[in-house]
Amino acid sequence: MNQRLGKQTVCFGEPPVILETAAIVGEKEGQGPLAECFDDILTDDQWGEKTWEKAESKLQRETALLALKKAKLTTDDINYVFAGDLLNQCAGTHYGLRDLKIPFFGVYGACSTMTESMSLGSMIIGGGMADYAMCVTSSHFCSAEKQYRFPLEYGGQRTPSAQWTVTGAGCAILAKNGDGPKITHITTGKIIDMGINDANNMGAAMAPAAIDTLSQHFTDTGFRPEEYDLILTGDLGTVGSDILCELMHDEGYDITELHNDCGKMIFNIEEQDVHAGGSGCGCCGSVFCGHIFNELKKGTYDKILLMATGALMNPSAIQQGETIPSIAHAVTIVR
Amino acid sequence: MNQRLGKQTVCFGEPPVILETAAIVGEKEGQGPLAECFDDILTDDQWGEKTWEKAESKLQRETALLALKKAKLTTDDINYVFAGDLLNQCAGTHYGLRDLKIPFFGVYGACSTMTESMSLGSMIIGGGMADYAMCVTSSHFCSAEKQYRFPLEYGGQRTPSAQWTVTGAGCAILAKNGDGPKITHITTGKIIDMGINDANNMGAAMAPAAIDTLSQHFTDTGFRPEEYDLILTGDLGTVGSDILCELMHDEGYDITELHNDCGKMIFNIEEQDVHAGGSGCGCCGSVFCGHIFNELKKGTYDKILLMATGALMNPSAIQQGETIPSIAHAVTIVR
Repeated sequence: MNQRLGKQTVCFGEPPVILETAAIVGEKEGQGPLAECFDDILTDDQWGEKTWEKAESKLQRETALLALKKAKLTTDDINYVFAGDLLNQCAGTHYGLRDLKIPFFGVYGACSTMTESMSLGSMIIGGGMADYAMCVTSSHFCSAEKQYRFPLEYGGQRTPSAQWTVTGAGCAILAKNGDGPKITHITTGKIIDMGINDANNMGAAMAPAAIDTLSQHFTDTGFRPEEYDLILTGDLGTVGSDILCELMHDEGYDITELHNDCGKMIFNIEEQDVHAGGSGCGCCGSVFCGHIFNELKKGTYDKILLMATGALMNPSAIQQGETIPSIAHAVTIVR
Repeated sequence: MNQRLGKQTVCFGEPPVILETAAIVGEKEGQGPLAECFDDILTDDQWGEKTWEKAESKLQRETALLALKKAKLTTDDINYVFAGDLLNQCAGTHYGLRDLKIPFFGVYGACSTMTESMSLGSMIIGGGMADYAMCVTSSHFCSAEKQYRFPLEYGGQRTPSAQWTVTGAGCAILAKNGDGPKITHITTGKIIDMGINDANNMGAAMAPAAIDTLSQHFTDTGFRPEEYDLILTGDLGTVGSDILCELMHDEGYDITELHNDCGKMIFNIEEQDVHAGGSGCGCCGSVFCGHIFNELKKGTYDKILLMATGALMNPSAIQQGETIPSIAHAVTIVR
C-alpha cells in the first residue's frame, strides 16, 4: 500500500527497482575523476553530427539504447519513458527519442530532471500502472552555452560562481520486479524563489530549493540525516553546496559529512578550470547512472538520498529583470 | 485495481474525478463562439504587466487560483500540480505558479500539455498517491509569435495553414473523491514524426500522432468510435482535422460525425481571420476547462475522448533542417 507521509513525501508499498542504468559523457567529463565509471566517453563532443543539438540528441538516444541492452530489454518492454533536457522545447529529448516508439511523457525540471523523471516513473510503477519505466536526460556544454549564455566563439569570461554544463546523458530503467537498488520514498519539491537574479550563480539560486525539500523530507519521513550513507545533490556546485550545508545546520541538521554534490564529483574542479563545478541535467544523470548506481550495487552505500536541483530560469525572463525560481526533487534509494 | 489494456492504455480501478475547472482567455478568444463559457475575458491581453511573458504567467496563476476558489479548496489541499506551457523553459508556468507553494512536476508536451498533465494527475490519484492534483496550462499569442515566428511588430504574413495561438489558460482540479465527470481511461502517445518540416503547418505535423494514439486507443480498449458522444482533438485546426478524419477512415474508423477540434471551436474561423484555427496549450486548456467540462456536467455528453495534440518543434531545429516530431495523449471522460 502506498502511503503519503506529511506534505510532500510518498512511501511505496512495493518499492520500484532500479534495474539498470547507462551513462555516456563528453571528452572533458572523461578526463575527470569518475572517468572509469562511464559506459562510454566521446572523443569528439560533436559525435559526427552537424550541430551541437543533434549531438545532444544522439547522446540521449544512444544512452537509452545502451541501458536497454544492458538490461536485456527492448523498447517494446518499456511501458513509459519520462525524459527531458535543457534545450528550448526539450529538443534534445524529442529528436533523441522519437525513433524509440515508447509511450512518452515529456518533463521539464531543468537540472532536476533526473529525479523528477525517477519520481514519476516510481509513482507509475508503484501505482500498479507499469512494469517498466525509463528515465532519461542529457545536457551538452556547447548547446547550453549557446542557448543560455554566449556562443562559444564569443569567448566570454566566466565568473567564479559560474558552473560548467556537463556534456553527458544518463538513463535509468525502473521495474516493478527484479534485482537492484529500490526507490522507497520520494519527496517532491515546490518552486522556491529567494530572489537570486544572477544566471551565473545558479548554486545560490538552487540552494534554497534544496534546503526546502531536504528539510521537508526529514520532517515527512522522520528520518535523521545520519540514517543515510550519502546525501547527494544534483548540481549545486561548490557555492550552492556550502550554502546548503550551512543553512541546513541552522535548521538543526548537520549534513556536512554526509553530503556530496554531482557537480563537485564529476570534475577535478581546480585542474579542470570549471569554476564552481558541473551542472546541467546530464550532471546528476551521468554521475548517478554511471557511478552511484554501481556503488550501490557493490555495497559501498546501503541507503542514499539523491536530490537533483533545477534552476527554472529562462534567459528572456532574466533580461526582463526576473529572479530565478528553483526546485529540488529527492529520491530515497536503498540497496 | 488499475489495469493495463494493450500497449498504451490504463483503465482506472477507481476513476479520478474532475472536480472543478477554470478558464480565462484573451480579448480575441472572448469574441469567438465560446465567449459565454469562459470564467473571465481579458480586455487587455497584456493585463497590466510589462511584458507578454509576465502576462502569460499571470494568466496561469489567476486561472489556477480561480479553479481553487470554485472548488472551495486552498493550495494546501492540493498534493501535486502538473503544469507546463510553450515558452522556453516553461517560463509561463514557473513564474506563474511559483507563489502557490504546491509540490510541482513540470511537464512539456507543447499543445498536448492539458491531457499530458491530466494523464499524469489521474495516474497519481488512481495509484493512491494523492487526493487532489491540479493540471494547468497556458499560451499567449504575443509571447508565442515572438518566440516561434516573428515579433508582432514585424507584421509577417501568415500562410493559409498557419494556426493562431490562443491567449488563454485552463486549470482542472482532479480528485480521488467527489462529484464530477470521471477519467476512466488514458492512452499515452508515442513521439511520431512523419517528416513534415513546415512550422506553419502544425496540423499536418500533428495529425499522424493523433491517428496513432486514436487507433491504439480503439485497439487497446476495444471501444468503437460510436461509443463516444464526442472525440475532441486539441488543436489540429482545419487542416489537421481533415487529415485525421480521412486517414482514420482508411484505418477502418469513421469518426467524421463525432469529431471536433478545440482549434476549430474557439474561433469563428472565417470572420476572425485565424486561417487554420486556434492552437497553443491554452486552446485545449480553455476549451475543455471553459466549455466542455460544463457540457459534461449539464449532460450534453455522457462519454467523450479528449485528445490534445502537440507539435514538439523547436525553432532552431527547424532552421537546422529538422522535421517536426509530434504527440497526442487521449483521456476518456465519462459523466
